[in-house]
Amino acid sequence: MTEKVYYSFANDYSEGCHPRILERLQKTNFEQTSGYGTDHYCSAAADVVKDYFDCTDHNVYFFVGGTPANLTVMAAFLKPWQGVISADTGHIEAHESGAVEATGHKILTLPNRSGKLTAEDVATWCETFYADETHEHMVFPGMIYISQPTELGTLYTKDELVALRRVADSYELPLFMDGARLAMALAAADVTGLSPTDYVKYVDLFYVGGTKCGALFGESLIVSNKIDQTGFRTVQKQRVGRLAKGRLLGLQFLELFTDDLYLEMGRHTNQQARKLAEGLTAIGVEFYVDSPTNQLFPILPDDVIPQLRKHFGFEVQNALPNNRHVVRFVTSWATLDDGVKALLEMLQKLL
Amino acid sequence: MTEKVYYSFANDYSEGCHPRILERLQKTNFEQTSGYGTDHYCSAAADVVKDYFDCTDHNVYFFVGGTPANLTVMAAFLKPWQGVISADTGHIEAHESGAVEATGHKILTLPNRSGKLTAEDVATWCETFYADETHEHMVFPGMIYISQPTELGTLYTKDELVALRRVADSYELPLFMDGARLAMALAAADVTGLSPTDYVKYVDLFYVGGTKCGALFGESLIVSNKIDQTGFRTVQKQRVGRLAKGRLLGLQFLELFTDDLYLEMGRHTNQQARKLAEGLTAIGVEFYVDSPTNQLFPILPDDVIPQLRKHFGFEVQNALPNNRHVVRFVTSWATLDDGVKALLEMLQKLL
Amino acid sequence: MTEKVYYSFANDYSEGCHPRILERLQKTNFEQTSGYGTDHYCSAAADVVKDYFDCTDHNVYFFVGGTPANLTVMAAFLKPWQGVISADTGHIEAHESGAVEATGHKILTLPNRSGKLTAEDVATWCETFYADETHEHMVFPGMIYISQPTELGTLYTKDELVALRRVADSYELPLFMDGARLAMALAAADVTGLSPTDYVKYVDLFYVGGTKCGALFGESLIVSNKIDQTGFRTVQKQRVGRLAKGRLLGLQFLELFTDDLYLEMGRHTNQQARKLAEGLTAIGVEFYVDSPTNQLFPILPDDVIPQLRKHFGFEVQNALPNNRHVVRFVTSWATLDDGVKALLEMLQKLL
Amino acid sequence: MTEKVYYSFANDYSEGCHPRILERLQKTNFEQTSGYGTDHYCSAAADVVKDYFDCTDHNVYFFVGGTPANLTVMAAFLKPWQGVISADTGHIEAHESGAVEATGHKILTLPNRSGKLTAEDVATWCETFYADETHEHMVFPGMIYISQPTELGTLYTKDELVALRRVADSYELPLFMDGARLAMALAAADVTGLSPTDYVKYVDLFYVGGTKCGALFGESLIVSNKIDQTGFRTVQKQRVGRLAKGRLLGLQFLELFTDDLYLEMGRHTNQQARKLAEGLTAIGVEFYVDSPTNQLFPILPDDVIPQLRKHFGFEVQNALPNNRHVVRFVTSWATLDDGVKALLEMLQKLL
Repeated sequence: MTEKVYYSFANDYSEGCHPRILERLQKTNFEQTSGYGTDHYCSAAADVVKDYFDCTDHNVYFFVGGTPANLTVMAAFLKPWQGVISADTGHIEAHESGAVEATGHKILTLPNRSGKLTAEDVATWCETFYADETHEHMVFPGMIYISQPTELGTLYTKDELVALRRVADSYELPLFMDGARLAMALAAADVTGLSPTDYVKYVDLFYVGGTKCGALFGESLIVSNKIDQTGFRTVQKQRVGRLAKGRLLGLQFLELFTDDLYLEMGRHTNQQARKLAEGLTAIGVEFYVDSPTNQLFPILPDDVIPQLRKHFGFEVQNALPNNRHVVRFVTSWATLDDGVKALLEMLQKLL
Repeated sequence: MTEKVYYSFANDYSEGCHPRILERLQKTNFEQTSGYGTDHYCSAAADVVKDYFDCTDHNVYFFVGGTPANLTVMAAFLKPWQGVISADTGHIEAHESGAVEATGHKILTLPNRSGKLTAEDVATWCETFYADETHEHMVFPGMIYISQPTELGTLYTKDELVALRRVADSYELPLFMDGARLAMALAAADVTGLSPTDYVKYVDLFYVGGTKCGALFGESLIVSNKIDQTGFRTVQKQRVGRLAKGRLLGLQFLELFTDDLYLEMGRHTNQQARKLAEGLTAIGVEFYVDSPTNQLFPILPDDVIPQLRKHFGFEVQNALPNNRHVVRFVTSWATLDDGVKALLEMLQKLL
Repeated sequence: MTEKVYYSFANDYSEGCHPRILERLQKTNFEQTSGYGTDHYCSAAADVVKDYFDCTDHNVYFFVGGTPANLTVMAAFLKPWQGVISADTGHIEAHESGAVEATGHKILTLPNRSGKLTAEDVATWCETFYADETHEHMVFPGMIYISQPTELGTLYTKDELVALRRVADSYELPLFMDGARLAMALAAADVTGLSPTDYVKYVDLFYVGGTKCGALFGESLIVSNKIDQTGFRTVQKQRVGRLAKGRLLGLQFLELFTDDLYLEMGRHTNQQARKLAEGLTAIGVEFYVDSPTNQLFPILPDDVIPQLRKHFGFEVQNALPNNRHVVRFVTSWATLDDGVKALLEMLQKLL
Repeated sequence: MTEKVYYSFANDYSEGCHPRILERLQKTNFEQTSGYGTDHYCSAAADVVKDYFDCTDHNVYFFVGGTPANLTVMAAFLKPWQGVISADTGHIEAHESGAVEATGHKILTLPNRSGKLTAEDVATWCETFYADETHEHMVFPGMIYISQPTELGTLYTKDELVALRRVADSYELPLFMDGARLAMALAAADVTGLSPTDYVKYVDLFYVGGTKCGALFGESLIVSNKIDQTGFRTVQKQRVGRLAKGRLLGLQFLELFTDDLYLEMGRHTNQQARKLAEGLTAIGVEFYVDSPTNQLFPILPDDVIPQLRKHFGFEVQNALPNNRHVVRFVTSWATLDDGVKALLEMLQKLL
């Protein structure tokens, strides 16, 4: 890979999908199936996903992407007088174009702590809310939204999740986890201390992200049977449509959860991030936040950025004092060693 | 194909997609592109689509499916005090789970005429509306929604479309065409008298359906520059999400509009329907409505239906007097001659 | 009353309110009370209303008007995947500017029978809905909306209401009654056979209209404790606001239900309508629909209408063959004998 | 007024209304008028309001209360992809039960500066928004919402308003002013430097509050003709209903703007607040925020509060260190000297 080559660390959905998925689509292409997720592939995929998380009494619903999943969950499970508690860095708050509000619900934001909600902050907020004599005139909390990993690449540990569960129970709030990048969290179980089963134990609803974890597209939402799901499929169609060829989602998740492909891609993604992070540290680059997953937030001098952008794709984020910016490098299931190496080499030259 | 084999005429999205599309996905799989439809494939696809309809000053937006396209159009282009005029058989009225109403807008239904809206009915409705002294307390018409072909398989002819255009102009109503099965309408130009260019000439917004016309999924919405499209991409994300790997949509439409693949599949689909219709007529079956496209509505005696359903997939619709039901047979880009033959043979035996 | 005088039969909200109400407002004007309906007048008013209908275990909520009451009920009690069944002449369908749809819910309309829904029609609709194999893609019925009296002045009898209750039970649908003109229905108990208690027995939610029954404004919604009302007051504020000086509503209903003022005004209103109807019949006028309450729908020759409108206020409605129109005459708690007499005299001259 | 007596400083809507208003209602009670604000009183009221602010080319719309006015403005004038910028103390953000979000729009909150938005903060926010490469995925600013006086009783000065106007112009954002307590702002022109005409000059839409300024209820919304108001009356009905006896609103505002009654009540309200504030200062009470209008935020030791609440109505707000709370005392058009005196006397005893 020479300097001429352009390589992107802009996000984890720059490539198509893992070849095994395309292969499966091809093999099954002429089979006739029923529509809208009623086919046997969706059913089999739901089974393997539930097996993986050991939750056979849960239900699985497939979505084309994360924003549709998030907004449908809010539209279906929040009551009209309720909003959802989220960190101010939450994806639903920051980058979904007001999708939650468009379903009629308020997002109740708390300041993030390295991208996370803390149990203590949520508890204090709820306590203050119910202590307010006028709270009948305000929006009631109706759900807690977290992401694993967070939008800053950080992770909830088992202790943190247990603590959130406790607050959720105190205030009878379903705990919803956006797992758009869940593969990377599962692959970082050494950091989180969370087994797959733990997710089901502590969280009421969460989705297993495909789009950012090696699928063409798709998220697999898992909902605890403690939550009344009457009408959910109708709300899904009403709000975002349901994929006519639903089997495309089933086939992908079936493949992702065959022979641990999902976990394997999560591991590769994190490893490439680790190589990149270590290389950056080695050449003296500092980080805005300490991320154990595949989103890195190094701080670069402003004059280096335009040069680097000629050869590498990445996001430039907030400005810092002394002519510096936070940038974001993202690795993926497809990130090549050569790409990482090239980025580090050029940065070393420029710094 | 023996009697044992099961073959489905349930819909036109039973199979995967045309092999050329999968091939293209495979060839480009490891290329890195930018997200959310900002890639060069989407741009190239928009160009070929606009070339085909000869409307380089229009804009093209890609959607994953028809319901998302319909509801986003309503959310974005209807004013808060407006509703959309539709036949009572319109897809948005009948089979989208209240998606339009969930965006806050009323559907103003008129009785269908073989699945179609007539210009006369729309004109009378609008005239009556504005003549009503209390119309300020009612929902104003803000758009006309039609489908080509309709949900009953029928087609608007050029004369009918010109007449609707005239009413639309009189009342300053954008005319929106749901083209979920547009390939079959384009392939029936002999019936409609409509060239591709005519669609652009008489319609303000319409979409070119992929899902039911041989793509894996996807609809390509074409919007006239007479319509203010500020903020449309944001509304799209807000309402239904936008596909992160947007290139999947671009790649598919690029292939569909290469070497007339789209039209060719529309022709095949209609031809298979013609063979089936002629065969049915030959064995004395009558039709509920006369459809020149790929949805057929034969009338069958009730006692035949359970037998037939053991071997063939199809929808059973409304009951008729004398122990009969309307059923629906749908052909597709993938319908095999053997399937048609087998269905006819079995029916002949049963009747 | 000479020909010069102008007198309005346009509606039942042309005047202010019964003098006793203004008097009560005046007497209590400088008393300080708490806001938003938490004052003792609202509490006392709820009690007298519940006493009247003999439903001490129900809850009462006050609204400023009918549209706010209707839309809040839909927003609060319909589930996201549900719509409300209504006659096509229902006020929510025809004259509320799409208020229900603006809360995200579809109105499922059935053809009216003299302004009414029949139990049979509702049952058939529900049966057909659940029999449809694709009903998951449609809007589920979630409530039945009726008006007493209807928008055509007609009344549900006890038998009809009992029959609707039975259907409501079969399909687990709350039965909601818009009682914007309930005083006139209560005053026509000889026609309906319904005692106040019967309303509570057969209907799950209904409101006692004030605006059209002699109050300045206001409707008093009564909700059965069989319906979960968590969050309802918050939804009310969210959707339409709650009156800061809530006592204004309490004071009015307290007065209306003191010494049978409500019923008395209903009786006067109906009596004036009877006089008018009999007078019209006597001079040969025919009616479009046979109304036992205060909205009359006589048929007049077109050439008479402009003359009559110089001296009398009334609505002109739909055209009929042979140069005739249906018009609407409405009496109220304040309608004077002289007004009725003058109208009849002039009409006799003109016809 | 002895210690036994209970007197409320809980809010400015504890009493009925100025006697002149009731008198006017009584005098006109039996007059017949047309409905929904089409009567001559509404028209006359709009004229006097427009005269007062010298804006004959503007339009006036009447609402029953502040929340209905706010949410209708958002529903009607924000585009689907837009939100409204507000201070985090803004009434729409804090105490309207999510009414704005229920219309589908996000509130874009900025930290308040003594209850106010600063032009600088708004400018910085907008600049950052448009500089963000991903802003297409976010909610666009579409309006600026401020209150005069603010929820903390503070006032925008002419300089501050001019500066906000400049930012509004730069980003083409309508500037909307919630004037629920506008009488008190008008009466404090010495503090603000703003004449009635200035409001029209610098603000695109604002309402003249009645509910908290001596009317029974009602707000009078003034909208610049620079804003397209097509369909606004229909949106009003759709979202919150329109008062059938609209004349009640017209009559009240007609009276309020006769012989400067509105301003006079604003002055009395502020004067009573000044007396109270000076008295509090004299006995050593400190304030949480310095308010020149009728909402005072003194800081009281916790042990005093329960005692005081036995005799006086007021809100207890946030806790402060050292066992103290912020409380809120509100004066009104009806506040008596005796009430103020009694409160001060008791506090002096308790402290």
